[in-house]
Amino acid sequence: MWASGAQTVHLVLDPLTDLTAPRDNSHDLLMSRSGGGWWRLNVPDATPGTDYAYSIDGGRPLPDPRSQWQPYGIHGPSRTLDHSEFVWTDQAWQPPPLSAAVLYEIHVGTFTPHGTFESAIQKLDHLVQLGVTHIELMPVAEFPGERGWGYDGVDLFAPHHAYGGPEGLKRFVDVCHSRDIAVLLDVVYNHLGPDGNYLSAFGPYFTERYHTPWGQAVNLDGPGSMEVRRFLCDNARSWLRDYHLDGLRLDAIHAIFDSSAVHFLEQLANEIYDLETEAGRHFDLIAENDLNDPRVVTSKEAGGYGLDAQWNDDFHHALHSVLTGEQIGYYSDFGKLEDLAASLKNVYVYGGRYSEYRKRIQGRHVCDLPAHRFVGFLQNHDQVGNRARGDRASQLLSIRMLKIGATLVLCAPFVPLLFQGEEFGADTPFLYFTDHRDPALAAAVSKGRREEFASFGWNPEEIPDPQDRCSFESSKLEWGQIEQHPHDDILHWYRCMIVLRRSHPALQDGSLDRLDVDYSESDSWLTLYRQSIAVVCNLSGERLSLSLRFAGEPVLASDPNFKMQGNVVEMPAETVLIIEQTAKRAVS
Amino acid sequence: MWASGAQTVHLVLDPLTDLTAPRDNSHDLLMSRSGGGWWRLNVPDATPGTDYAYSIDGGRPLPDPRSQWQPYGIHGPSRTLDHSEFVWTDQAWQPPPLSAAVLYEIHVGTFTPHGTFESAIQKLDHLVQLGVTHIELMPVAEFPGERGWGYDGVDLFAPHHAYGGPEGLKRFVDVCHSRDIAVLLDVVYNHLGPDGNYLSAFGPYFTERYHTPWGQAVNLDGPGSMEVRRFLCDNARSWLRDYHLDGLRLDAIHAIFDSSAVHFLEQLANEIYDLETEAGRHFDLIAENDLNDPRVVTSKEAGGYGLDAQWNDDFHHALHSVLTGEQIGYYSDFGKLEDLAASLKNVYVYGGRYSEYRKRIQGRHVCDLPAHRFVGFLQNHDQVGNRARGDRASQLLSIRMLKIGATLVLCAPFVPLLFQGEEFGADTPFLYFTDHRDPALAAAVSKGRREEFASFGWNPEEIPDPQDRCSFESSKLEWGQIEQHPHDDILHWYRCMIVLRRSHPALQDGSLDRLDVDYSESDSWLTLYRQSIAVVCNLSGERLSLSLRFAGEPVLASDPNFKMQGNVVEMPAETVLIIEQTAKRAVS
Repeated sequence: MWASGAQTVHLVLDPLTDLTAPRDNSHDLLMSRSGGGWWRLNVPDATPGTDYAYSIDGGRPLPDPRSQWQPYGIHGPSRTLDHSEFVWTDQAWQPPPLSAAVLYEIHVGTFTPHGTFESAIQKLDHLVQLGVTHIELMPVAEFPGERGWGYDGVDLFAPHHAYGGPEGLKRFVDVCHSRDIAVLLDVVYNHLGPDGNYLSAFGPYFTERYHTPWGQAVNLDGPGSMEVRRFLCDNARSWLRDYHLDGLRLDAIHAIFDSSAVHFLEQLANEIYDLETEAGRHFDLIAENDLNDPRVVTSKEAGGYGLDAQWNDDFHHALHSVLTGEQIGYYSDFGKLEDLAASLKNVYVYGGRYSEYRKRIQGRHVCDLPAHRFVGFLQNHDQVGNRARGDRASQLLSIRMLKIGATLVLCAPFVPLLFQGEEFGADTPFLYFTDHRDPALAAAVSKGRREEFASFGWNPEEIPDPQDRCSFESSKLEWGQIEQHPHDDILHWYRCMIVLRRSHPALQDGSLDRLDVDYSESDSWLTLYRQSIAVVCNLSGERLSLSLRFAGEPVLASDPNFKMQGNVVEMPAETVLIIEQTAKRAVS
Repeated sequence: MWASGAQTVHLVLDPLTDLTAPRDNSHDLLMSRSGGGWWRLNVPDATPGTDYAYSIDGGRPLPDPRSQWQPYGIHGPSRTLDHSEFVWTDQAWQPPPLSAAVLYEIHVGTFTPHGTFESAIQKLDHLVQLGVTHIELMPVAEFPGERGWGYDGVDLFAPHHAYGGPEGLKRFVDVCHSRDIAVLLDVVYNHLGPDGNYLSAFGPYFTERYHTPWGQAVNLDGPGSMEVRRFLCDNARSWLRDYHLDGLRLDAIHAIFDSSAVHFLEQLANEIYDLETEAGRHFDLIAENDLNDPRVVTSKEAGGYGLDAQWNDDFHHALHSVLTGEQIGYYSDFGKLEDLAASLKNVYVYGGRYSEYRKRIQGRHVCDLPAHRFVGFLQNHDQVGNRARGDRASQLLSIRMLKIGATLVLCAPFVPLLFQGEEFGADTPFLYFTDHRDPALAAAVSKGRREEFASFGWNPEEIPDPQDRCSFESSKLEWGQIEQHPHDDILHWYRCMIVLRRSHPALQDGSLDRLDVDYSESDSWLTLYRQSIAVVCNLSGERLSLSLRFAGEPVLASDPNFKMQGNVVEMPAETVLIIEQTAKRAVS
């Protein structure tokens, strides 16, 4: 174990569950220095399943920063684990490429009533039928309490005990692979949660050189940073190697500050690339990035970091604000069909433009990158959960408009991502919820949430309290809805759209050169052309007659009451129609 | 003028010299808002030479952040200036390329007894005879008081009044150009000095997101940053356009924090590239960078920032520690001939290696970049002035060793840079000196200097006080030395070496592929091969017999008592010998 500033380190075997309780330290085992801040001890008795902790300079026992398993939560002892004990059945598994992917984001705790990996397995039939190729798990690394989004995790190597721990995650991944579904995991390397964060006792994991909105910035370029980078890279490797995950979603990389000549993300991409050779499988690294910086997904040879993809928030914001008419907060930078068209064609709306909301120039123009380096979505945990009352697009939009939104996500050139329940228009919210046990922290979280939305004019009493167990419970999907109207209708549309995408190479084409968009701001229609496919959207409240670039055959319509004559189509209000140019006409 | 947070802005014409004095504000002129935080007023009376200041929200008058001229120093009023009034005579001027350059760093205040641009002109004959192609001026932007290094400048557009102001700088550059010498200027964009820094009253020039060792970090990526970037880019453009400078040395870019998708340095390089087209001349941007990051000087097409060159501190540290045997502070990472050989061959010694001094991985391997993207030196203002007593290499080394150092700088593949007086082994020190008028700041600077060196074991009383006028005066070059022994001998060697470099294309070759180094750590010799030239250094205290890769003819020797037979050379202690492979032998 690494504790670079320690004078002595003791291993505490089988500590009390409450590490703060008074105890007899006479059996603590003194560890030996091993160079570079590392400490070693060979403990033949410590078989898999042994509980342990570390005492730094005679202090009270602390969990292992690299703990594989925290059966009692963030404040309890760590437990040893032998990864070779799990019997994997996925030897033949190879994940599909992102270019052919449909991603589906899951929060384990609310995806099913039980909120465990095991119960999530029961829903794989549904995902297979839907056509999902990749599940993306929200963070599972041990975080405070029994429920939470997971972005304040502190034991980065330990799958959360309430979800089913290491064994549960392995079984989930193994079964997913047997159903031809890849599994990605959301990991948070920009900060660690405040509660249960004992890392500073071990070494210089954090720095004061930079500030993040959520806590101390991680030390990636100061003294001691080599081992901090090692810690995070080893964490990424562990998820992929020991848990057979197929890739990682890297949370908020714009808050990963590193001025080293080799950026942490580039090092990570290099190491994961090497791991691919070792494992014989491909891994995907997908970044969340608020900077609209194509360098992240540019190849290393071209001076980039070489990640596989990044989330395209601009596409979401443009689509959401066009569909809902919302213009508050960051949506104030969007709202026009021009923006939506720009994001479909150029990836970013703000690719080097001044943003009124940000009061600065945002982003950089995307040149010569395939659209599959970007993930597109109508909803995700943040876009739903960061609303005061966690309402989904299905609460904000008519079903007619919702179908247009789904169609644009699934016909866009980006890798589509759905958020759990989106496919059937779940009317359960996805609220912000936490389970902090520290009273001061709990109160601060509740107060912070109220104040955040008060600034947008909300009555504080209307804001669900994150600490209230109901916020968690009410966020659980109600699977009974799936058979009910209108959820069945929405689900049918999503299924059709995914079939359409996966069966038409034109819709999975990643070349932005072969994509065109026509639109009319005043008449409120937009047509997306993807080679021989036209996706015609009437976003207005009125029946419209539109001219297309070509004549063709209707493939799918959200409302059958349309008319076509040559390249003119007449469509009811708030409908979408997909037309395929016939081969004959294309030739003529 | 830009004052984005102001409610009102008044122009104060002909204010008192003491801007803090009580005054009648009834004649202040109210300015008009003009969008984006800009304020305008057309003042026909304000002819060139008019003194003025700004009052923000009725506050006391402040100098203009973009002041062109501060005749009374940092706390006084600004003065208008018409750049078109100066009559330039350098219409035909084109600077030589860096690949053929010999740089010479000057501190205007100590270069001559008078310490002005005008008196510096008197020394141009000497520099022409020496073979200097580019003068690099230490910062001249208005800084506190009458003397200082200039890195705490606050009026970035105003040449220091004590040096001769705008007119003085223009005349200096014009005369340099007439003597075929290009002029580069050191500019500081990572922070601004604490004293006289009124910028925060005008807009969000600074940020708390990042920390620099010298003061608040400049806001290059937060709200309002577009105008801050504009301010700095316009500053760079002004020096090149209005003062005909040939390039800029960008101070400590590792402290220029910017996470925008287009880094400030890339924007700057783009804008200066555009200015080249406009001006019809080439401009050089040279960075000081402590990160050993080749991205800075990598072309934009290859994902870099596209700067022209950067200082190579590793070469300096390797050379200095080999010659002096010093191993304290950052020299602890160096000291072996292996390091010197590595920097000659690979540019960086730390190009992705763990640094014990930094306690982290430093740098990145340089691939496929010409060596002319890097500046090499035995001395510069920092390496001399940041020593407790400002001693030069000529105080630390025997003349024999000094000549070896000079030879390696001038035969290295990097663009050589000399520090004023180095060429004649000046024995005046270059001390740290300031002229802060704020008593608290003055005391803090004096105390800080004492404490810094006390930590290296110095007696505080031996540390010259930066505020003491003697620290400045004693740092002035004594030009009488130039004719005296041994200074004349040193100067002769430097002149010969520069002639040698400029007359031998092999020595100016930027390809690291065509360079080789042999050395023996135990016998203390090193031979640098540059195509047909061998630079043979006996760094030991004993006469040595060495085998070379080829036989040749001696070109230059620091001691005539050497012997050659075939490819074996016998050399006296602490000598350097330059051998050229004869064409006949090369063919045989």
